[in-house]
Amino acid sequence: MTDLAVEAHAAATRRRAVEGVEVEERREGRITVQSVTIKDAAAGRKIGKPPGRYVTVHAPGLRQRSRSHGAQVARHLAVELERMLDLEATTSVLLVGLGNWNATPDALGPRVIERVLVSRHLNGAVPSELRGDLRSVAAVAPGVLGLTGMETGEIVHGIVAEARPDRVVCIDALAAQDPDRLCTTIQVADSGIRPGSGVGNHRAALTRETLGVPTIAVGVPTVVHAISIVESSLGTVTEAFRGRGRWAEMIGAFADDDEDRAFLREILTPSLGALMVTPKEIDLLVREVAWVLAGALNAVLHPGIDLSDFGEYAQG
Amino acid sequence: MTDLAVEAHAAATRRRAVEGVEVEERREGRITVQSVTIKDAAAGRKIGKPPGRYVTVHAPGLRQRSRSHGAQVARHLAVELERMLDLEATTSVLLVGLGNWNATPDALGPRVIERVLVSRHLNGAVPSELRGDLRSVAAVAPGVLGLTGMETGEIVHGIVAEARPDRVVCIDALAAQDPDRLCTTIQVADSGIRPGSGVGNHRAALTRETLGVPTIAVGVPTVVHAISIVESSLGTVTEAFRGRGRWAEMIGAFADDDEDRAFLREILTPSLGALMVTPKEIDLLVREVAWVLAGALNAVLHPGIDLSDFGEYAQG
Amino acid sequence: MTDLAVEAHAAATRRRAVEGVEVEERREGRITVQSVTIKDAAAGRKIGKPPGRYVTVHAPGLRQRSRSHGAQVARHLAVELERMLDLEATTSVLLVGLGNWNATPDALGPRVIERVLVSRHLNGAVPSELRGDLRSVAAVAPGVLGLTGMETGEIVHGIVAEARPDRVVCIDALAAQDPDRLCTTIQVADSGIRPGSGVGNHRAALTRETLGVPTIAVGVPTVVHAISIVESSLGTVTEAFRGRGRWAEMIGAFADDDEDRAFLREILTPSLGALMVTPKEIDLLVREVAWVLAGALNAVLHPGIDLSDFGEYAQG
Amino acid sequence: MTDLAVEAHAAATRRRAVEGVEVEERREGRITVQSVTIKDAAAGRKIGKPPGRYVTVHAPGLRQRSRSHGAQVARHLAVELERMLDLEATTSVLLVGLGNWNATPDALGPRVIERVLVSRHLNGAVPSELRGDLRSVAAVAPGVLGLTGMETGEIVHGIVAEARPDRVVCIDALAAQDPDRLCTTIQVADSGIRPGSGVGNHRAALTRETLGVPTIAVGVPTVVHAISIVESSLGTVTEAFRGRGRWAEMIGAFADDDEDRAFLREILTPSLGALMVTPKEIDLLVREVAWVLAGALNAVLHPGIDLSDFGEYAQG
Repeated sequence: MTDLAVEAHAAATRRRAVEGVEVEERREGRITVQSVTIKDAAAGRKIGKPPGRYVTVHAPGLRQRSRSHGAQVARHLAVELERMLDLEATTSVLLVGLGNWNATPDALGPRVIERVLVSRHLNGAVPSELRGDLRSVAAVAPGVLGLTGMETGEIVHGIVAEARPDRVVCIDALAAQDPDRLCTTIQVADSGIRPGSGVGNHRAALTRETLGVPTIAVGVPTVVHAISIVESSLGTVTEAFRGRGRWAEMIGAFADDDEDRAFLREILTPSLGALMVTPKEIDLLVREVAWVLAGALNAVLHPGIDLSDFGEYAQG
Repeated sequence: MTDLAVEAHAAATRRRAVEGVEVEERREGRITVQSVTIKDAAAGRKIGKPPGRYVTVHAPGLRQRSRSHGAQVARHLAVELERMLDLEATTSVLLVGLGNWNATPDALGPRVIERVLVSRHLNGAVPSELRGDLRSVAAVAPGVLGLTGMETGEIVHGIVAEARPDRVVCIDALAAQDPDRLCTTIQVADSGIRPGSGVGNHRAALTRETLGVPTIAVGVPTVVHAISIVESSLGTVTEAFRGRGRWAEMIGAFADDDEDRAFLREILTPSLGALMVTPKEIDLLVREVAWVLAGALNAVLHPGIDLSDFGEYAQG
Repeated sequence: MTDLAVEAHAAATRRRAVEGVEVEERREGRITVQSVTIKDAAAGRKIGKPPGRYVTVHAPGLRQRSRSHGAQVARHLAVELERMLDLEATTSVLLVGLGNWNATPDALGPRVIERVLVSRHLNGAVPSELRGDLRSVAAVAPGVLGLTGMETGEIVHGIVAEARPDRVVCIDALAAQDPDRLCTTIQVADSGIRPGSGVGNHRAALTRETLGVPTIAVGVPTVVHAISIVESSLGTVTEAFRGRGRWAEMIGAFADDDEDRAFLREILTPSLGALMVTPKEIDLLVREVAWVLAGALNAVLHPGIDLSDFGEYAQG
Repeated sequence: MTDLAVEAHAAATRRRAVEGVEVEERREGRITVQSVTIKDAAAGRKIGKPPGRYVTVHAPGLRQRSRSHGAQVARHLAVELERMLDLEATTSVLLVGLGNWNATPDALGPRVIERVLVSRHLNGAVPSELRGDLRSVAAVAPGVLGLTGMETGEIVHGIVAEARPDRVVCIDALAAQDPDRLCTTIQVADSGIRPGSGVGNHRAALTRETLGVPTIAVGVPTVVHAISIVESSLGTVTEAFRGRGRWAEMIGAFADDDEDRAFLREILTPSLGALMVTPKEIDLLVREVAWVLAGALNAVLHPGIDLSDFGEYAQG
């Protein structure tokens, strides 16, 4: 129920460490940068994520939508993006904004695409000796299954085959387990992404293996599954009612029992399975996060844009 | 936690009938029409809604978005609208689409406004003897506090003072308690509406008393508060775990204890208070419901539009 | 300066018939259906359009946005689409909405895509013996060069290579010479389309030759080049001032002199070359025409949709 | 045919100076600031604009959409806005974004409103001794006649009567005579504005007289009437063809003859009267200009925003 490796790892290690996973963390003011490296398939299975490096920049301050804080977050994000993208002067990049532009919490990817500077079309007109300053950047928002009738992965594969970029960066809205992570955590991963419900569908995956070039996924949780909310609230409720007499016997052990949790999901799925939870001000938060992501991407991709004024080029 | 009188009434009567409230219900196929009439202020206090007549058209089939079912729902809705609006040939109407057009679940009001036919501006150009066929209809979407910096009620009061309509119809997205009501229940009420958080703010209310003309509210729940989801899930969970040994002693009585419920809300509010729950396909559902509402309004307001082809004039 | 074969042909034949071109015309009420068949490359060069069959449905009444007239136009359009598409029960179709969704007159293609019913994703879930009733239809709006940094043709080629449809239908906004044709003429052509400025760029063309499957172009003029307006006004002006003494000597012969016309374009291009002319109410007209096109496409493509209620499924 | 006083004045003075009009001009780099002060009604009639001070900031560089140039333009604009608004610490302001959000060239006003920071709703929550730093700013986009069925002026009058601001600033898209002014000239005027076609309709005017408070109009031409294009092209054509023999005798005197001009308009109006001319890239230009206007307004209105980083707060 979570797209964040950091949450999946925390859940998997509730009772024991997971072998084959390396975790690092650093803090700077109110910003926490954590990296979870899943070293092999065995470790991946335990955590439920494919092997790769997952870095999360967590900044609760993004909810206050302060420009200076946003710029600080963008700086941390830019460091991680640069490290994962490993760009040379002539490396071309295709940005892919996944998600449904008609549904506010799912519109993050397309909103970022509206704010990035594209330049691939200018390259042909420029003599090769001058191209050093102008990286080739293209950007598409392929839509979702319900809008196009096609698997998003198919569309992206087709475009990559034509554009032949050196790197692909996919931007997508994610689901988290913890509502406090909504629009405050940015995950960058080198393991790519599997858009939509394309489970078990090889063509749907957007990864280095399927696309043939390094494929970075940038995601921000904008929703929590309704079932996750109930699940985590049960813990709170249990704690709170403990000692209030009546609920006293209540299952303190619940949080530790995998079987109970599975049963819980089973009984809640019919009524809650298709429901998503978002903050009330989701429209403002998506706008804010799109601005931070587009600003960091513009600054990392275009040598001429300085991080100090990145925000001016990322307007919608 | 609910804007639906039918839910508020059911909650208030969990253990006993409420005096001063009249309830009627009729079914036709999969559509249920219920009316809750709150006769006086005393009854209103018990239910938590102002006195008035609240009619809900509940049509679970709206989730399947069938055109013919939509048309059937529109027909029931039209009957109730006609009854409440009590229009004569020259009665002028102002439609007000409340809500935030940038946030999908809150955009219902503005989306309806985009689909209704306005005619007030044509009236001046038409000789009075010909105006019988052309009702004066105006329509505005005033935005929300965060977009304008003004109470929505203030803006609407100002516009009503200028337009001097004979009737006001406010269309708004509502919150329900039960997720099954999301985008499947339409409430029409003659008690008006209090947009946004304008509690205790007289100017914020849009009612017959504050606006000086009959003011009908048309609302459709598009969100459930996250706390409501947890609350109702606790019942399900309790039921389900009963007899599974460990949870056996669990608070079967919970659902009946008002004090426990209040305490529950208190402990959940910090983490969940600002979170809303919506169906995943909320963009499609809002579009569908906007089409049904606009279609019914167009057919009721404009003598020249027949209900049988209402859908054609309500395109977005 | 025109994308309409019927105008190009009229211009080319101002003084003499063009060999290798067949023209037919029929009228029904206020609707005129003309077909221009360009039989070979030689004839194509004279007219400035590639060989193929170009049918225009011209309906000045579309400007009045009457629903019943729109339905009549859709019926004529459906006849031509069916003839050109030559569909069997299992023929799959990809719809491509060309143009820039941010610029009202160029947004026609994307607006049609929002209104068509896609079904390709449902096909995989249906046993093959049941698929007869459900044609596989996919739909994409690939954007324009300035939004994506990629030639639109490249994106479409990539998607076609993945989706492997049996037919491609491209919908695009066109330029006309005569302002009376704006949003009143629909051109359907079996010669495909060359989106954007992709002159001399083979990959940019979307045709049977480049895509490997029959490729139909559906276009509606929404703009006139500013230079065309001046050009055609000069004729009006000359006529009008003739006999008003002072302008008496004015070049009545102007309209016949190709050299003068070329010179005129040359001198006007610096100031007017980048300017487009549209009707004031272009937003309403584009919406109306998108509704007619999407309605006709839905009815032609989906056996379950009858033309008589096509409009209900083509809401935006 | 022009909303710019500077053009109207130039036309009126083609042959002679106009008494009662004062003109000033200064240049800084590629930016020209001109002010036309119409001192009384008599002078106003000659120019065709009501008395008042009209300042235009003309910056052809806005077409290149350079951020640093935009910031420079905003600085000039801020100086003029400050002078006209004459703000004290507690002066409250209502911003009104006129125009149709569905038609790209007419959407400038609403686009600016999306980008300004509103604060009026925060004021009530702040103790009065702290309010010095927080000016009360509200913002509305009232729509146009065709969307609402109401005169825009009516809606604005109603809102002003409720909000009781100390100043009103109306932002609107204008028509120019010269296409070179499209999206490159910003006009600020203290004479208010008459939105839409409300000629002769007192209630439609948004001025100090009708609203009761100083009312500043900020406008940018985004369209030229098609007839203006033909008119000005005739001059170019006449010049160019002079001496090319055949057209040699052509009406060199045309540009000077008011009667000929009136006749010209008369004969062109049936075919061209409802047509507007815009640059092809109008979507990008409107976005750019909205960013500059919102940035300057935010910096002028909110003491906490410095002009040097105004752009960061004016994102869409």
